Amino acid sequence: MPTPSAKAYVPFVSVENMMRLVHSIGIETMMIELVEALEKDFLRWEQFDKTPRVAAHSEGGVIELMPTSDGIRYGFKYVNGHPDNKLTGHQTVTAFGLLADVATGYPVLLTEMTLLTAIRTAATSAMVARHLAPENAATMAMIGNGAQAEFQALAMKAVAGVRSLRLYDIDPEATEKTRRNLEGSGLSVTACRSPEDAVVGAGIVTTCTADKQYATILTDNMIGAGIHINAIGGDCPGKTELHPDILKRATTFVEYPPQTRIEGEIQQMGDDYPVVEFWKVLAGGEAGRTDESQITLFDSVGFAIEDFTALCYVAERIKGTGFFENLDMIADPDDPRDLFGMLQRG
Amino acid sequence: MPTPSAKAYVPFVSVENMMRLVHSIGIETMMIELVEALEKDFLRWEQFDKTPRVAAHSEGGVIELMPTSDGIRYGFKYVNGHPDNKLTGHQTVTAFGLLADVATGYPVLLTEMTLLTAIRTAATSAMVARHLAPENAATMAMIGNGAQAEFQALAMKAVAGVRSLRLYDIDPEATEKTRRNLEGSGLSVTACRSPEDAVVGAGIVTTCTADKQYATILTDNMIGAGIHINAIGGDCPGKTELHPDILKRATTFVEYPPQTRIEGEIQQMGDDYPVVEFWKVLAGGEAGRTDESQITLFDSVGFAIEDFTALCYVAERIKGTGFFENLDMIADPDDPRDLFGMLQRG
Repeated sequence: MPTPSAKAYVPFVSVENMMRLVHSIGIETMMIELVEALEKDFLRWEQFDKTPRVAAHSEGGVIELMPTSDGIRYGFKYVNGHPDNKLTGHQTVTAFGLLADVATGYPVLLTEMTLLTAIRTAATSAMVARHLAPENAATMAMIGNGAQAEFQALAMKAVAGVRSLRLYDIDPEATEKTRRNLEGSGLSVTACRSPEDAVVGAGIVTTCTADKQYATILTDNMIGAGIHINAIGGDCPGKTELHPDILKRATTFVEYPPQTRIEGEIQQMGDDYPVVEFWKVLAGGEAGRTDESQITLFDSVGFAIEDFTALCYVAERIKGTGFFENLDMIADPDDPRDLFGMLQRG
Repeated sequence: MPTPSAKAYVPFVSVENMMRLVHSIGIETMMIELVEALEKDFLRWEQFDKTPRVAAHSEGGVIELMPTSDGIRYGFKYVNGHPDNKLTGHQTVTAFGLLADVATGYPVLLTEMTLLTAIRTAATSAMVARHLAPENAATMAMIGNGAQAEFQALAMKAVAGVRSLRLYDIDPEATEKTRRNLEGSGLSVTACRSPEDAVVGAGIVTTCTADKQYATILTDNMIGAGIHINAIGGDCPGKTELHPDILKRATTFVEYPPQTRIEGEIQQMGDDYPVVEFWKVLAGGEAGRTDESQITLFDSVGFAIEDFTALCYVAERIKGTGFFENLDMIADPDDPRDLFGMLQRG
């Protein structure tokens, strides 16, 4: 067969190559660089085409497409959420993503995004915590020690000054897995016996549990004045982690209100519950933390622009490396009108 | 690095492998098999989740995601439409698609879909023509001889009994390309000097021009009684090929009315313009052609279910062949909660 032209090739980053890329950069450096890239994109928030995600719900879970564009590049992520997948040895959440050139519509990157999503979610949390957490918040409680835990811990260490971690999970094995994985990370890690125990002395409280149901991981009495709550786990309709009384006391920061009101912790509150768009804090149009005793809450659900940032970052960072292969994904006949001739000669 | 488990792999059909698959099956056999598969899926039309396509428009074109699901499998197509791409040697339309398992959300097929879209579009046209064209319609006029032309011709030959073709394009080189490519196909091919010349004696008139503007490829006086019109080219807002007077005389059949009213020929008509959903003709709930003098019009815009059928067909047909490669696209840690451990050990 004739060799496809360069236009026919789409760089593809496999899971293995993503791991190599992360190791070659170093995970903490990657978190720092990604936070820098996220801040740049959050600062130009209004340039992005913001479409609600397109969800296909089924009994076992959901499959979503999350597209966005800045007018130059177009990106989307395919992501599933199937809570019972762990019973069959599958990942609850898997993802891949694609970046394309808006001018031609041609894809320019295809990549695994299961790892990349874990990394961008943690980087987003750390970006927000750096701006909202109380000063010198060196201790973080982490309730829920699943797949996202270590990424959150290392991002908070690299970007938000966290030095010690207090872990809790209903399954002690999950806590032990997280503790073991963080050995040698430079973080001081304590396994706790209860959520109440975990939050003792913590300036940042991260919740990232996985149950798809209205749960109360944090109750009002557990949250003292001045705490920053980083709520990751409540990220789809019917899934929340915080008691509504906490929301009543907190100043709540969100990514994109139309999505968060459906998917986030604030789905428990009325439509008039006040929220602050985090990009406006970065841009200086809205206040972040205004006093030491304020409870700040980042009601994180994950937004397409964060994936876009991560896709652009990977597209840039694989240049000149061997961490991708070229996929022959785009039919590219010599004469664009002669698709059939290409097939015939193939 | 440890070898990824079988769950981590997604079969990928490259352009080269799609060409090999088509050659190994034979394009006319493939059209016949695909029409059979399309009819089965059209007959269970109501089982499908029908979402309007998600479009990102820009100055130069559009990028679309077209998802659908039958509750067992989920499919989507990424497709762009950039009319000026041909000026830079790019394809106007390129596409790829993905099929996933609804129960787990795991992808089960990634494939090029530029060729596959051309094939499924032609197969859909042929399926409809087989049911609606006048009896013994052995001659087809084809106005617009671009990338879709030969696929339409061979599908109509394989499925709808077409034996001779009358070609016209404003660019004689396009006509010559089509004529040359169809040498040895068994079709008798005539190059015509005008659209009026092309339609002489034709029982089926196919329009597949590419200009993105309101154009009048067919005027009322060109369409005699009893003709079946297969209108392919008018497939996005602002792009039509038929004079509205033809629509007033014809019985119009469509794929999915909410989409066709925006994208098809009928965007020129009022919202009360009557249309027949083609799947209902197959299912016996609506009449197809009812008399010899009736003008039938298939206002084709291309719908996600057709891509779904094509994806399922390819997923089935590559089994046991070498026409795919396995992509390591899904992170698959031994313990689903230990994504970080997988990264660390990688």
